[in-house]
Amino acid sequence: MDNSINIKDISPFDFLAKVGGFFKKNESNNSSDNLGYYENILPNGDYETTCQFLQKVVDLMMIHIKNTNNRSEKILRFQHPEDLKQVLDLEIKKEPVELSKIIDDCEMVMNYAVKTGHPRFFNQLSQGLDIVSLAGEWVTATTNTNMFTYEIAPVYNLIEMTVIDKMRILIGWNEPCDGLLNPGGSISNLYAVQAAKHFFFPQTKLNGLFKMPKLVLFTSEHSHYSVHRAATILGLGLNQVKNVPVDEKGKIIPEKLEFMIQESLKLNEVPFMVILTAGTTVLGAFDPIEPVADLCSKYNLWLHVDAAWGGGALLSRKYRNLMKGIDRADSVTWNPHKLMGALLQASVFLVKKKGILLNCNEMNATYLFQQDKHYDVCYDTGDKTIQCGRHVDVFKVWLMWRAKGDEGFEKQMDRLFELANLLYEQLKIRQNYEIVLENPEMTNICFWYVPISLQKMDKNSNEYKQKLHQVAPKIKEKMMVNGSLMVGYQPLDDKPNFFRAIISNAATKEEDILFMLDEIEKLGKDL
Amino acid sequence: MDNSINIKDISPFDFLAKVGGFFKKNESNNSSDNLGYYENILPNGDYETTCQFLQKVVDLMMIHIKNTNNRSEKILRFQHPEDLKQVLDLEIKKEPVELSKIIDDCEMVMNYAVKTGHPRFFNQLSQGLDIVSLAGEWVTATTNTNMFTYEIAPVYNLIEMTVIDKMRILIGWNEPCDGLLNPGGSISNLYAVQAAKHFFFPQTKLNGLFKMPKLVLFTSEHSHYSVHRAATILGLGLNQVKNVPVDEKGKIIPEKLEFMIQESLKLNEVPFMVILTAGTTVLGAFDPIEPVADLCSKYNLWLHVDAAWGGGALLSRKYRNLMKGIDRADSVTWNPHKLMGALLQASVFLVKKKGILLNCNEMNATYLFQQDKHYDVCYDTGDKTIQCGRHVDVFKVWLMWRAKGDEGFEKQMDRLFELANLLYEQLKIRQNYEIVLENPEMTNICFWYVPISLQKMDKNSNEYKQKLHQVAPKIKEKMMVNGSLMVGYQPLDDKPNFFRAIISNAATKEEDILFMLDEIEKLGKDL
Repeated sequence: MDNSINIKDISPFDFLAKVGGFFKKNESNNSSDNLGYYENILPNGDYETTCQFLQKVVDLMMIHIKNTNNRSEKILRFQHPEDLKQVLDLEIKKEPVELSKIIDDCEMVMNYAVKTGHPRFFNQLSQGLDIVSLAGEWVTATTNTNMFTYEIAPVYNLIEMTVIDKMRILIGWNEPCDGLLNPGGSISNLYAVQAAKHFFFPQTKLNGLFKMPKLVLFTSEHSHYSVHRAATILGLGLNQVKNVPVDEKGKIIPEKLEFMIQESLKLNEVPFMVILTAGTTVLGAFDPIEPVADLCSKYNLWLHVDAAWGGGALLSRKYRNLMKGIDRADSVTWNPHKLMGALLQASVFLVKKKGILLNCNEMNATYLFQQDKHYDVCYDTGDKTIQCGRHVDVFKVWLMWRAKGDEGFEKQMDRLFELANLLYEQLKIRQNYEIVLENPEMTNICFWYVPISLQKMDKNSNEYKQKLHQVAPKIKEKMMVNGSLMVGYQPLDDKPNFFRAIISNAATKEEDILFMLDEIEKLGKDL
Repeated sequence: MDNSINIKDISPFDFLAKVGGFFKKNESNNSSDNLGYYENILPNGDYETTCQFLQKVVDLMMIHIKNTNNRSEKILRFQHPEDLKQVLDLEIKKEPVELSKIIDDCEMVMNYAVKTGHPRFFNQLSQGLDIVSLAGEWVTATTNTNMFTYEIAPVYNLIEMTVIDKMRILIGWNEPCDGLLNPGGSISNLYAVQAAKHFFFPQTKLNGLFKMPKLVLFTSEHSHYSVHRAATILGLGLNQVKNVPVDEKGKIIPEKLEFMIQESLKLNEVPFMVILTAGTTVLGAFDPIEPVADLCSKYNLWLHVDAAWGGGALLSRKYRNLMKGIDRADSVTWNPHKLMGALLQASVFLVKKKGILLNCNEMNATYLFQQDKHYDVCYDTGDKTIQCGRHVDVFKVWLMWRAKGDEGFEKQMDRLFELANLLYEQLKIRQNYEIVLENPEMTNICFWYVPISLQKMDKNSNEYKQKLHQVAPKIKEKMMVNGSLMVGYQPLDDKPNFFRAIISNAATKEEDILFMLDEIEKLGKDL
């Protein structure tokens, strides 16, 4: 305690008993279970009750963590929305609800949660429940602050710089770069288009796009939809995104790209950017970076690589070559909450050219970014973002990375690819499965389950395709109702619905891969 | 357990000992403190060690909560960035770091955190450490999911609908509306401009703004900078935001607004939107909604009310009139993480017209928003956002609201206003203080501390203003170095730097208000 502060010296407990911020026991009910009501605003809560309450929530969370990792637990208890509404009491009432009921609410939410960390959850790019990352997120919540200034988030801002720099080195950029964590890969991609636009046409910050020629960007037809959405948000319009054809592996075809750039120039449009994908959402394809980087040099285009999904592979010496040439990108999206298994949400936007984020976004709000502060205000990050308040996403990433080290992460990456390979090999030898993409490079494994009733049909017939299209949704329904498995499905181009199993959960093991295929056969065999 | 699942019946502990996702004890070191390394990826972690690790982190968090509410604890331990870098070990290494070190890292972060929940933190609109909201955020982290589909976030999506509807009723809209939680008020305001633009000019989604006449929006010169930034992001450009003058209270002047609309029309620009503020960032002014709503009807303009800060006052019968006419808004921003004290981050964008968010943003990504799912896909929210993955922000808001009830929140709001009034009254009677805004309506209280050395100077002289301008930064430095108090400052228009104390922490009490003024006097008296 600083002696210069004039506070009466009272015991911590007496003191705490008098502050707001704590709970008050319900004195009319002495049962030990009854924590009473929440009286945060009244100066008579107590620390002991507060700890009791929080510890009860913690105990429930510990059970949830156990259940999440328990293969004999269901992944989810599916209910249709209208039914679930009937089952749950979600109403916010006039009167306060007792704290014991609040604890029940926490339990309820965990009971009906989809266990995205369950070893048999293969449904989404984000999976797993990394324990260290979880601890990091709890601590983040407990410190409840905001990234926008060094003033109120000193350590978190330094940690963000550390993580950005670590990733910069993995990308292979030689000079210090710029970057920030932000709410998801879609926003990272938005930053990329914004930065590219600002780099070539800084006057649009003031003037808008009204008098501009048509600015055009190129991306593969398999890129993430956020690229297209970014173009609509930024006022470019969906029509100004040119979808370049992909080859049979799902990779952009550089020759087609060049042809389309030339066509666009002939139309007096202004191509300014190419967005490649390192690990497409469905097939997990890696666009070839080097030949496209050559084109970007030739035509003076900004090169962005959306490595939201594939980025984690940079941690493995064995797989980082999938992104050969990524050091030539002007900007990169990389989501640690995907392959690296950080908790949601953790997406990083990195940009080679320092200062451009600030140039794009600064509004010089004097009430937040005073230039006459007593510390070096270049550590304030708020004015380079499209947000004002910004959630602390970085601590959980940094903490997890510290705990694993580069070596641990490399092992984890290699292990995920190994499991994906096992799945692929299994699909090849199982007769009721057909592979969508041969020799996949990423841990997306795409396949059809073909029920026996369809196996004798002409595979080129429309009838076959129509029937096959309905198989995955039906099996998906069964797995959700059973709660035994979660695997996503979707159509792609002219391909009927197929399963896309994602391997990104560190808790997944060989037995889970085998289980997935056995379970799909069991659920689908009578279709 | 579902009998249809073919899993060997083994004891939970054996089972857990074999899954990934847990920790492995360091067998070479038997001290009870040594949790060993993190071996999430190896199939030999155990649940017991995992719980031990997490419990240690929880125990530290409990202490942090205690310290946060302890007035005799420093709010922060300030270090300059370059110094702090020297003190801390932030490096991510090749090798894993021991778990005991990871726990130290958590402790370090809390040690150097700015205690934004400390009763003497008056620095920002977001303050406090609401315990129920905190529990909600911990549970949210533990369930680690994503709002984009009902499929993987069933309860959270239903809860979001509940909260949106609750807020809709408080705003006074009669019909079900649309809305979503999103990463901060700046993004909410961005949604507002996007929705307005799309409502009047839906063709811009495809075509962009290239061939459009100049679209113009109006806001007060005291509105939040995110309004201006939204215009630049969306391609309208900063010049298309017209800053309408405010009166001496900081409120937009409707007559000036109408004049500016007419001037704009004369220039063949296309006015399409007015953004009002309910609780401006610095002065806490409430723009008059009703006369502006009349103008919006007259000129066919979208009316957005940015109630990010003031919104919480809708919970109080005594103060909700500050936003009289808000039911006439087409859209509203309202951040529960501000006046309502929810943890960061919780911002809500509400829009009267159902469907417009989806129309703006939908890209129909078939790999995520399959239309042939077995449940009612109107519960999937992902396609109406500008994100893809979206963090679960709503649970902590809902849980807190349940615990307090409307009644509890009303008390909390009234209490905050009462404390703000105490501060104002104190300022009036203390001779070394001058008030910036008489009779403030919101819980922002703006004032100058005038050291004795300045009191005899001519208050209209430049010298006085220049000297006064330097007072707040100097005192701010001292309070940060002491760690005794946090109050923000800024200049505004032609006013030199002044303090802006924000009252939004439920833990703040009368004694803290008095302490603030005493402390500033103590720190500033020799200036």
